[in-house]
Amino acid sequence: MSGNAFGHLFRFTTFGESHGPAIGCVVEGVPARIPLEEADLQVWLDRRRPGQNRFTTQRREPDQVRILSGVYQGLTTGTPIGLLIENTDQRSKDYGNIADRFRPGHADWVYQQKYGIRDPRGGGRASARETAMRVAAGGVARRVLDTLVPGGVRIRGAMVQMGPHAIDPRLWDWATVEANPFWCPDAAAAAAWEEYLDGIRKAGSSIGGVVQVEAGNVPVGLGAPVYDKLDADLAKAMMSINAVKGVEIGAGFAAATLTGEDNADEMRRGPDGGALFLSNQAGGILGGLSTGQDIVLRLAVKPTSSILTPRRSLDIDGNEVDVSTHGRHDPCVAIRAVPVAEAMMACTLADHLLRARAIAH
Amino acid sequence: MSGNAFGHLFRFTTFGESHGPAIGCVVEGVPARIPLEEADLQVWLDRRRPGQNRFTTQRREPDQVRILSGVYQGLTTGTPIGLLIENTDQRSKDYGNIADRFRPGHADWVYQQKYGIRDPRGGGRASARETAMRVAAGGVARRVLDTLVPGGVRIRGAMVQMGPHAIDPRLWDWATVEANPFWCPDAAAAAAWEEYLDGIRKAGSSIGGVVQVEAGNVPVGLGAPVYDKLDADLAKAMMSINAVKGVEIGAGFAAATLTGEDNADEMRRGPDGGALFLSNQAGGILGGLSTGQDIVLRLAVKPTSSILTPRRSLDIDGNEVDVSTHGRHDPCVAIRAVPVAEAMMACTLADHLLRARAIAH
Amino acid sequence: MSGNAFGHLFRFTTFGESHGPAIGCVVEGVPARIPLEEADLQVWLDRRRPGQNRFTTQRREPDQVRILSGVYQGLTTGTPIGLLIENTDQRSKDYGNIADRFRPGHADWVYQQKYGIRDPRGGGRASARETAMRVAAGGVARRVLDTLVPGGVRIRGAMVQMGPHAIDPRLWDWATVEANPFWCPDAAAAAAWEEYLDGIRKAGSSIGGVVQVEAGNVPVGLGAPVYDKLDADLAKAMMSINAVKGVEIGAGFAAATLTGEDNADEMRRGPDGGALFLSNQAGGILGGLSTGQDIVLRLAVKPTSSILTPRRSLDIDGNEVDVSTHGRHDPCVAIRAVPVAEAMMACTLADHLLRARAIAH
Amino acid sequence: MSGNAFGHLFRFTTFGESHGPAIGCVVEGVPARIPLEEADLQVWLDRRRPGQNRFTTQRREPDQVRILSGVYQGLTTGTPIGLLIENTDQRSKDYGNIADRFRPGHADWVYQQKYGIRDPRGGGRASARETAMRVAAGGVARRVLDTLVPGGVRIRGAMVQMGPHAIDPRLWDWATVEANPFWCPDAAAAAAWEEYLDGIRKAGSSIGGVVQVEAGNVPVGLGAPVYDKLDADLAKAMMSINAVKGVEIGAGFAAATLTGEDNADEMRRGPDGGALFLSNQAGGILGGLSTGQDIVLRLAVKPTSSILTPRRSLDIDGNEVDVSTHGRHDPCVAIRAVPVAEAMMACTLADHLLRARAIAH
Repeated sequence: MSGNAFGHLFRFTTFGESHGPAIGCVVEGVPARIPLEEADLQVWLDRRRPGQNRFTTQRREPDQVRILSGVYQGLTTGTPIGLLIENTDQRSKDYGNIADRFRPGHADWVYQQKYGIRDPRGGGRASARETAMRVAAGGVARRVLDTLVPGGVRIRGAMVQMGPHAIDPRLWDWATVEANPFWCPDAAAAAAWEEYLDGIRKAGSSIGGVVQVEAGNVPVGLGAPVYDKLDADLAKAMMSINAVKGVEIGAGFAAATLTGEDNADEMRRGPDGGALFLSNQAGGILGGLSTGQDIVLRLAVKPTSSILTPRRSLDIDGNEVDVSTHGRHDPCVAIRAVPVAEAMMACTLADHLLRARAIAH
Repeated sequence: MSGNAFGHLFRFTTFGESHGPAIGCVVEGVPARIPLEEADLQVWLDRRRPGQNRFTTQRREPDQVRILSGVYQGLTTGTPIGLLIENTDQRSKDYGNIADRFRPGHADWVYQQKYGIRDPRGGGRASARETAMRVAAGGVARRVLDTLVPGGVRIRGAMVQMGPHAIDPRLWDWATVEANPFWCPDAAAAAAWEEYLDGIRKAGSSIGGVVQVEAGNVPVGLGAPVYDKLDADLAKAMMSINAVKGVEIGAGFAAATLTGEDNADEMRRGPDGGALFLSNQAGGILGGLSTGQDIVLRLAVKPTSSILTPRRSLDIDGNEVDVSTHGRHDPCVAIRAVPVAEAMMACTLADHLLRARAIAH
Repeated sequence: MSGNAFGHLFRFTTFGESHGPAIGCVVEGVPARIPLEEADLQVWLDRRRPGQNRFTTQRREPDQVRILSGVYQGLTTGTPIGLLIENTDQRSKDYGNIADRFRPGHADWVYQQKYGIRDPRGGGRASARETAMRVAAGGVARRVLDTLVPGGVRIRGAMVQMGPHAIDPRLWDWATVEANPFWCPDAAAAAAWEEYLDGIRKAGSSIGGVVQVEAGNVPVGLGAPVYDKLDADLAKAMMSINAVKGVEIGAGFAAATLTGEDNADEMRRGPDGGALFLSNQAGGILGGLSTGQDIVLRLAVKPTSSILTPRRSLDIDGNEVDVSTHGRHDPCVAIRAVPVAEAMMACTLADHLLRARAIAH
Repeated sequence: MSGNAFGHLFRFTTFGESHGPAIGCVVEGVPARIPLEEADLQVWLDRRRPGQNRFTTQRREPDQVRILSGVYQGLTTGTPIGLLIENTDQRSKDYGNIADRFRPGHADWVYQQKYGIRDPRGGGRASARETAMRVAAGGVARRVLDTLVPGGVRIRGAMVQMGPHAIDPRLWDWATVEANPFWCPDAAAAAAWEEYLDGIRKAGSSIGGVVQVEAGNVPVGLGAPVYDKLDADLAKAMMSINAVKGVEIGAGFAAATLTGEDNADEMRRGPDGGALFLSNQAGGILGGLSTGQDIVLRLAVKPTSSILTPRRSLDIDGNEVDVSTHGRHDPCVAIRAVPVAEAMMACTLADHLLRARAIAH
């Protein structure tokens, strides 16, 4: 209700500011006797961690997660799982010049309006640092999914557009995704992006992007019509990530241009006697329920407003000022959104999996 | 939790199937002493009502809403408002041929998988008929907003694209929206759409569309970071509407192509001493909080799969069949999504308005 | 969140005032394919119905419940179940004298303070009439429990004390409960109560009582430590019933006088190899979880303040007045609390049953 | 939903086991700009802290709480407040003998049944250690109440019965409460209890008790009829505390013996023109809403089952065994329930205060 929690049955609640002593979360609703250790979470945090190449913010944090509760002798006990990451590289000085002036396009000004106070150090609660706890919770969710769903659920993401440069989906190669700093599924596009983003970075500018996340082997029937449709909850999950401005499922906005004939995914009987879909315009969700096809969604990520170019703004006293940001920053925050979006997909599916179990007939 | 309610403090819970005896809802959290009568809701229901022209389903229902509780002598009492609409035109026969075969692209098949049973009459719970209660609840939300926000909140929607035919936003004229059957803000486009949609309709086909909804005079600071960001809740609200496949706020997917310089909305001091934004790429929301600028969002609506053209599918016994739909249908369901999206905007804002009041400093 | 709903997974939301056109509720979370018809609910409503003898209010309502949704061909469909009871005997005139003066001990005055308005007809939302919907929802919950729990869950209540006159628990006979107007498990006590209550009734006075509710064959492990302990949720459920002022589980307040030796329920191995408890001081709940023993709780019900004797009070303008109530009233509202408490027990157990299924290992 | 959180708008979520590395919680919904520092919480934790005299468990923990987020320069920021207490005195060896055998009357056996696993060290999640976080959250709640309610809300508790020995309420002296190890409001009774409890302690036994908590200067109208009545939420809050078996408000169970004449609190006009109640049988709550009178409630606390006397039980393999507990224990856990019950009162009132603000007219 206060906006720091996500999910209903599988639920996590986060706290922490960018430059406070620590960030953390409580993960509730994890069934008992699921194998879990810190390394299961660290692997995902390491993917998200900034400072690994010149295309993400140079903040260097080990982001070492500790499990404080809820696990006994390597198994979950059904009690809440407390997770903590201490902040080690806080360099508050870097942001001193923005303590009393508002970066256009940031949450600074509107936080000040709403709360009458804000922690200006590194963006405080509005910092992308908060997403580390999403990734940690997502790691728990993956363990839940992999334990409860036969064969496990395969969740993976990629960046499919940087600025105006979209990939050609026909060239998609998942193996390539891990082989470049952009999670780009097309090696040639990745090379072009590298040159393009170097230009952006050297200019002190920034650029947006589009991320695609997919989930395979999702059980049929996850989701709760009418208001908690699986796609509705996924849309909320993705739009809650910093800088996301749009979400689409399956054909998405392109569905507006389709006829009913082209949009409906026809069915034949599959080799196992069940339904075999002949296309996936729906992106794996119909009527708010998972169909068993791959869930496919995309999110649009805006460019960060922490740029070198001076922009017109106000200071805390209402004076007109110019603002430029000299601290560490990401030329394309969409890159780091990939593991975060994967994590939110995992958490949403884990929550709906538990909800489905409750009413299973 | 079971998916039939929307909102937290301003909250409505709906029930009812397309061809059952009635649909209804309970609206909770309405502050006391707000003027409210049935006519306040009926006006919005009349806008949504099908069968008003040849471009929406020919189902004819008066959709007369009754207030069963929560209002005394023309004022709300702070107790829950029960709303009921009796179903009068149910013609179940029309749908007889789809009782045992699944329309591709509909919720039929997946409901059957999840629940092992479904009410096949007119789409049951998955029918767009359910959206009537959203519109009724939205009418209550509008009264809340207009009473509690000085000057009221102005919520309005329009259809901005039909199939491949998008309007030119520079020609936008709100006065035109009410003057054509498509809520189209451009009279010339509306005329072209009419011809285009007649072709679709006569062919027994259907087409998608894009709807834009705006809210003006929204108080600054609505929204709850991090997971209940105002845009996250709006995304969920819109994606929960039948047939919606994408949602974007402000620049939306186009933000992916923008640089930080172009995307950030600069600020100057306004005539009232407050902030004056020089652009609105953010669509009125930053950091998950309303900025006071107009909230602008768009949703992509897929074409209905209830079409005359036979499509490959399965029947309830797993046999391969062809399915075509001969009952009443909408050639472009995006049209009727306009008042529904307005209503969901109103409900989301009313909920967050109450949430903001709880912690106002 | 607005106080008109109970439960999380099995959840019902009610609306309606005593003298409005109807009362109703929406029951969510009912698994699909559970047999349900109106008669399943009516049987419980008939038990609660007032006016059946001279010891309950003479208001005469058929209290005929209608199922408006969520059931198809005699089976639940997994969609929300809308229930409606029309109010037929509203006689608002009876209460005319209390429209502008506050009955001491009633909710009248404090509703006026909180909301600045109230529906004074028959107590409005604060009327015991609201409990009819609890009983209807409880009827649905019983169907859920009986379908999902092998052997069904047996829920039954009795009145164990009227004013100062408590029964002797050693004389308890469940067969007697249905054979007297007080749900009293001791025929001799019932006879004495009849004489006692006639005196109270003729004097225009009222008296309190204590109700006991039990649940048998409850699965082991229902409840969610720490804050949603089963006993905590039961306490809330019971205390939410009109006029209830106390709740105790098992030994209850008497546990304060016990030593650890006497209070702990010892265990031996039972004939089925499981645990056999040698006593039930715990009332079937340990650590917030059901143990499989009978759940036993008691609630204290205060006397109604609607009495003939004039009492000192204020009117709506703040003037000092005397108030006496001449309308229909109950000399001992605890009687009618029995079926209501049973219903709340059923709903609480159904909710926790679904919650347990979600995380079952 | 998973049972580790309390409240809706003012909400805290806890984690941690008795002998894990730490316990902690996240407090959400705290309005911005409320003065808060660690000392504000530590003062209440110090009251609860065990090991301060021979009548509470000899576990010695400094229970030093750290604020990890949500406070900037001594003021709350509106973001979630992360709290952490490291466990320092864990002595797992003390409990080694109960790792594989179930203490009768404890949660051990039923946790094992529900989860198939449990952390046996010191009671794990079921330990009273968890209540430290309730007290910390209660400290935050008190700051909220004192800041938002003019004059502050005065919450205080006392122990009014130990075993069979109840105090005489006419001798009540709040000043005495802080002057004896039992929070007893009667010095003579406290002296008698000391002798009595020494006997219990030396015998390795334990005894129950009754605690009373009061809240003064509570605003009129807190609470949300019908299902979230203030007394219903308080009952849940209190019953969720370890070892509590009964809750009563105002006259409580004695209300069952009262006539309507005696039970109704009459009203006269007070010196300020408002209502002046002539008695407080209601315990400050009518119709689920606070009346402005003192809220008065009592809770019954059972004796701990960790006693020296061997009791019949089972081990983890189903064998019949005798169990006695040799570790540190509390001869009367009701003593330590006093500050915990105060904290739960504070949290419940803070939550309803925010809820009331949301719909204030």
